[in-house]
Amino acid sequence: MGKRPHVVIIGAGFGGVAAAKKLAKKNVDVTIIDRTNYHLFQPLLYQVSTSVLSTDDISYPIRAMFRDYKNVELFMAKAQEIDGKRKVVITNHGEVAYDYLIVAAGATNNFFGMENVEKYAYGMKSIPEALHIRNHVLHMFERANKQIDNEEVRRKMLTFICVGGGPTGVEEAGAIAELVAIQRKEYPNLNFDEVSIKLIEGTDKVLPMMPPKLIKHTIDVLESKGVEVMLNTQVADCDADGLYLKDGRYIPSRTVIWAAGVKANKVASTIGTECDRAGRVVVEPTLQVPGYPEIFAIGDNAHFMTESGRPLATVAPVAMQEAWCAVENILSLINGSSSLKKFEYVDHGAMATIGRCQAVVNWGFLKIGGFVAWVIWMFLHLLRLEGAHADITVGTKWFWNFVSGTRLGRIITNIKLEDEDENMDAAKA
Amino acid sequence: MGKRPHVVIIGAGFGGVAAAKKLAKKNVDVTIIDRTNYHLFQPLLYQVSTSVLSTDDISYPIRAMFRDYKNVELFMAKAQEIDGKRKVVITNHGEVAYDYLIVAAGATNNFFGMENVEKYAYGMKSIPEALHIRNHVLHMFERANKQIDNEEVRRKMLTFICVGGGPTGVEEAGAIAELVAIQRKEYPNLNFDEVSIKLIEGTDKVLPMMPPKLIKHTIDVLESKGVEVMLNTQVADCDADGLYLKDGRYIPSRTVIWAAGVKANKVASTIGTECDRAGRVVVEPTLQVPGYPEIFAIGDNAHFMTESGRPLATVAPVAMQEAWCAVENILSLINGSSSLKKFEYVDHGAMATIGRCQAVVNWGFLKIGGFVAWVIWMFLHLLRLEGAHADITVGTKWFWNFVSGTRLGRIITNIKLEDEDENMDAAKA
Repeated sequence: MGKRPHVVIIGAGFGGVAAAKKLAKKNVDVTIIDRTNYHLFQPLLYQVSTSVLSTDDISYPIRAMFRDYKNVELFMAKAQEIDGKRKVVITNHGEVAYDYLIVAAGATNNFFGMENVEKYAYGMKSIPEALHIRNHVLHMFERANKQIDNEEVRRKMLTFICVGGGPTGVEEAGAIAELVAIQRKEYPNLNFDEVSIKLIEGTDKVLPMMPPKLIKHTIDVLESKGVEVMLNTQVADCDADGLYLKDGRYIPSRTVIWAAGVKANKVASTIGTECDRAGRVVVEPTLQVPGYPEIFAIGDNAHFMTESGRPLATVAPVAMQEAWCAVENILSLINGSSSLKKFEYVDHGAMATIGRCQAVVNWGFLKIGGFVAWVIWMFLHLLRLEGAHADITVGTKWFWNFVSGTRLGRIITNIKLEDEDENMDAAKA
Repeated sequence: MGKRPHVVIIGAGFGGVAAAKKLAKKNVDVTIIDRTNYHLFQPLLYQVSTSVLSTDDISYPIRAMFRDYKNVELFMAKAQEIDGKRKVVITNHGEVAYDYLIVAAGATNNFFGMENVEKYAYGMKSIPEALHIRNHVLHMFERANKQIDNEEVRRKMLTFICVGGGPTGVEEAGAIAELVAIQRKEYPNLNFDEVSIKLIEGTDKVLPMMPPKLIKHTIDVLESKGVEVMLNTQVADCDADGLYLKDGRYIPSRTVIWAAGVKANKVASTIGTECDRAGRVVVEPTLQVPGYPEIFAIGDNAHFMTESGRPLATVAPVAMQEAWCAVENILSLINGSSSLKKFEYVDHGAMATIGRCQAVVNWGFLKIGGFVAWVIWMFLHLLRLEGAHADITVGTKWFWNFVSGTRLGRIITNIKLEDEDENMDAAKA
């Protein structure tokens, strides 16, 4: 590797990749540590889980991304611990030494200590999780179709619950509603009045980053698609056959999708400095970890306090802007400068899709919902996807989905497990 | 379902789907029994295993195929036994009664009783198997890249063996060679002289259905791509670290892909009539199973003797033509006719691809190898793929592959297993 400064980046999400792209053109050696060999475009993961897109459409090989930059290497491994004293990252494939470290390891599901929810509900933060949801939901229709004499079991199989009213929960519920509309045409012997889709949210609103008008629009659209929106509803517990609510109700269901919270990858907390309740490292205004000037935490791994007294949200634009700031500060340190840049987030707004022809956009003065918002959403997501190739295949699939009203990704790939073990939850493992 | 004759088809491969499409327009009820919910375009499975195409590109939902025909239903289950006396198919989800039965359950890997080969070699007959090969081969590069001080282990990881010189083995070996050429650009620290690709064939030639000129062309092309073609070479045994040959040699390798033989799905033999060594039912000239005039066996499940004294090959065109004949005969039986059609196969020739810009085509007078053959191969495969949507996405991916020289399907999806269990063979289960 030579004697250039070695910058190690944990995580190839939006933050890690943004940092690596900036560093690729500089006089440093870069090692990206990631459990996977690809960058995942998480905002479209719900479309993999609902049979619209394929794994490969939203995953881009990390090495392909940097094939023209010989100073960027991938080390495919699970980062387990950061030893800030010895300046090494400990992984399941040995240690990686660093001069500078960017902790961008992302987040995982937060079940808030509810063990049964963790066991029975489906998280949706990774490709394997999205495929499990896809396989499971499609299985439910095939299984229900065979339960000719048992309405109770059929209804349980045809009840789909999304927990969490943020963008992920809203998008997933809307996409399941559309999937159901497509399935309806292909199961002549199933009574689709038995299908139920519920979106459960603990607070009094969905999409809290949106203005009231667009929140109302979102709920109206979801309800028109057949989604029951249950606000002010808290989850108490879960079992293989349904969900317990804090108000004492029980909803029989084989499918609980958990989009109610995330927590930082636990490697961030191994530095040993102060973390918030979600495991995010409390960082200095320069994004440095207190006491470790060569370690920067960004994105889902950073707790960055704003002037309003609330930490920044864990969204892709924050992670990317933090990445650029961290890289600038690392280059300053390498050049011997002691005046580092303080991070300032520029908020460009938010958007979410609710389904075919329906999205909401909140950009400063532009606050719209409906078809135009959906076109903007599609256009921007295509622009942000990695690689022209994905633009074409994803664009083609969306167009085909739109004109033909079908989803050709309805492929059940885990038949082996299902066959061998009639307990379907084995497929979750 | 009413009182129309009930035709049950076991298997949604080329034969089963061809039969169902003919029957969909007739006054019968049709039930397709399949373990999966999709029709798999098997000729392109090797492209999934080598990171060119996605699962969804070559899999088409069976229900979507018949959404306009309400007389065709899918029963997603594993057919375990045929009880010809009671006229029922016994599945893992209960029994399905039939008036007429078409056995088109396809084939699985034939390891010829070699238990270790079955345990350690990778079959390639299904989507999960193709994805295992993809994940495993990609892992080998990441693993070898970390073996900085151990050339022996690196070489073992970078030796890829395909067994079987038929179209599958030839296509897989060629596609792996091209994958290696792409990987070469992205692993600056790996020495690609340590990579070895071997195609092992027990007889004295590859692609036996081709004329000598094209066989020689195939071997020349494979060798120019870096594939070592080993003819007259028989496999004796296998373990986790390599392959034993009958001549006493041992080839260290972590990757043995088995394309040396298939046998019929065992459900065919449960009828209890005479089968050949590969488990195919010896059928009458009408494709009926002797003693069971209402059961027809086709494709990989039928042993159909020709005038030349050799049974028909187990290829898609045979299965489809047999399907049409079986349907015609079933409709004759329904109409009370006693004169059934005797099956006659019309051979349209064969083709195989060896890699980018290289294929061989053997159609009567047209016997060519090279670029034109490759264009014909691509065009015909796009035509034969199910659905215009797949034509567009597959065509786009091939075009992109061609112009950019990269494969964006190089996504390792089984990281969880790999992390938890350092014994990589656990990932095979």
